[in-house]
Amino acid sequence: MADEERARTLAELGEFAVIDRLVVGRRHPATVLVGPGDDAAVLTAADGRTVVSTDMLVEGRHFRLDWSTPHDVGRKAIAQNAADVEAMGATATAFVVAFGAPGTTPADDVARLSDGMWDEAARFGATIVGGDLVAAPQWVVSVTALGDLAGLPPVTVAGARPGDVVAVVGDLGRSAAGYWLWRNEIRGHDELRERHLVPSVPYGQGRAAAEAGATAMTDVSDGLLADLGHVADASHVGIDLSRALLGADHDAVVAAAAATGGDPWALVLGGGEDHALVATFPAEIPDGWRRIGVVVDGPSRVLVDGAVPAGDTGWQSY
Amino acid sequence: MADEERARTLAELGEFAVIDRLVVGRRHPATVLVGPGDDAAVLTAADGRTVVSTDMLVEGRHFRLDWSTPHDVGRKAIAQNAADVEAMGATATAFVVAFGAPGTTPADDVARLSDGMWDEAARFGATIVGGDLVAAPQWVVSVTALGDLAGLPPVTVAGARPGDVVAVVGDLGRSAAGYWLWRNEIRGHDELRERHLVPSVPYGQGRAAAEAGATAMTDVSDGLLADLGHVADASHVGIDLSRALLGADHDAVVAAAAATGGDPWALVLGGGEDHALVATFPAEIPDGWRRIGVVVDGPSRVLVDGAVPAGDTGWQSY
Repeated sequence: MADEERARTLAELGEFAVIDRLVVGRRHPATVLVGPGDDAAVLTAADGRTVVSTDMLVEGRHFRLDWSTPHDVGRKAIAQNAADVEAMGATATAFVVAFGAPGTTPADDVARLSDGMWDEAARFGATIVGGDLVAAPQWVVSVTALGDLAGLPPVTVAGARPGDVVAVVGDLGRSAAGYWLWRNEIRGHDELRERHLVPSVPYGQGRAAAEAGATAMTDVSDGLLADLGHVADASHVGIDLSRALLGADHDAVVAAAAATGGDPWALVLGGGEDHALVATFPAEIPDGWRRIGVVVDGPSRVLVDGAVPAGDTGWQSY
Repeated sequence: MADEERARTLAELGEFAVIDRLVVGRRHPATVLVGPGDDAAVLTAADGRTVVSTDMLVEGRHFRLDWSTPHDVGRKAIAQNAADVEAMGATATAFVVAFGAPGTTPADDVARLSDGMWDEAARFGATIVGGDLVAAPQWVVSVTALGDLAGLPPVTVAGARPGDVVAVVGDLGRSAAGYWLWRNEIRGHDELRERHLVPSVPYGQGRAAAEAGATAMTDVSDGLLADLGHVADASHVGIDLSRALLGADHDAVVAAAAATGGDPWALVLGGGEDHALVATFPAEIPDGWRRIGVVVDGPSRVLVDGAVPAGDTGWQSY
């Protein structure tokens, strides 16, 4: 494509020319029976089941284009949806993407968003199999992930039992620490600031947890206390976390918390968007996971060192 | 739920209380192995394949809340996604919905949107298995439909062959006629105005076409000429439509066209959003379909009575 064409806007190029550019040259595995360009995609569902989850990201609410590059936004949108699929004990295999943006948006920026999606999906062998491109007053990225359980039972939020170990894999508090660094315009702490823009999802660990017999699992999207609260409610159990076992997470954000005037424990216990996986196990935990607490008898609640924690308990959309 | 609670806004109730209200009491078929409330839904895919398609509707661009009720918007969002699945020869079985709206939105309006989705999905036995609710400056409804091919091969846009019959089932031009009635504030023609708000998708006819051996199929979302243009391009064929065979469609919109100063043929040939199904058949067409033209040798193009039509050829997002 000629340089002058690359710089043009969505309105100048038109929907179909932009879509053609996003789709051309992309390769799909043989499990994609019909890919982009038709009314719908058709995928194999090898074990006779399909896992499906959807998330919407709105500019100004879930990302800022003065902090994130379009590539970052694409990676984040795929990562957080893939994490939902991982949290069922599955692997994300394919995505469809609906994208809204103003007509003045450079087509190059949309290409970079798409590249970010493809780059993130490639980390676990998935592809983008379809989508929609529409006019909207601001960027809106809505992603639906499909996943494969490979014959295993799904790991829901409802199966935790008293006596189970609570364990986590992936980051806690890093995204929230990065957020406050960005908000306060504090440089340095590059990894934390990057983590806020693109979470580091522990791909493959959802299936590892399922294979290890996890009784319940979720991803940390709204904050550890809030997300484990869903597990406690659905499983009718209590969950008791240990600050001592979360010491490494505390230490990873303590400097950033000091720089931004925040509480490191609020970041670790209340910070969302890292998309770590947290699960309950009746016995051994998989390699790479770390034990952070235990499941106790109800009532449904999440304790820290045996007590109800004070303070903010996590993200809600409103 | 108490009356005073029903009238409250999304911001007042919070994300999780609103979601609880949308989910409570809904029933799912046994094919929904895990429904709403977990990180992802899990569905059976009986024939080992999944059909998937996504569309985004943005307030002010794809619907207006001074024309449509929230219930209408919900029905339309489901209908147009289901039509994409039908156009593969499949039946839509489940949906996930991402919804963005301002915090000032009454929770009742969101409940009505959800009811519209459930009502439309119930027409063909499908349910809403998951979703996301986020803050956005205006309403954004992003729906992903999953579908079942029931063992049949998918009907793509690429299989039309010279000599095939072109046939359609469902409305043509009605949604566009209704749009111009709304735009010109012309009362009467109630059915056309209603059709613009909620398309009448010929559910079940996608599978009927597949069973009848359709060689190519699409739904009329952007306009008959535009959508058949995709079939012509993908199949490397010409398509020749007959005004005489489209006479009933012309007659259905001629009065509305006169009232709004429009051309009835522009409505029939260029009007989108009715989500009729148009397909090519090597022999017999299914009951309820009507023949509107023939497939001819390439070059790829759509003709009307043997000639290239003048005028607007359909909707693009930009």
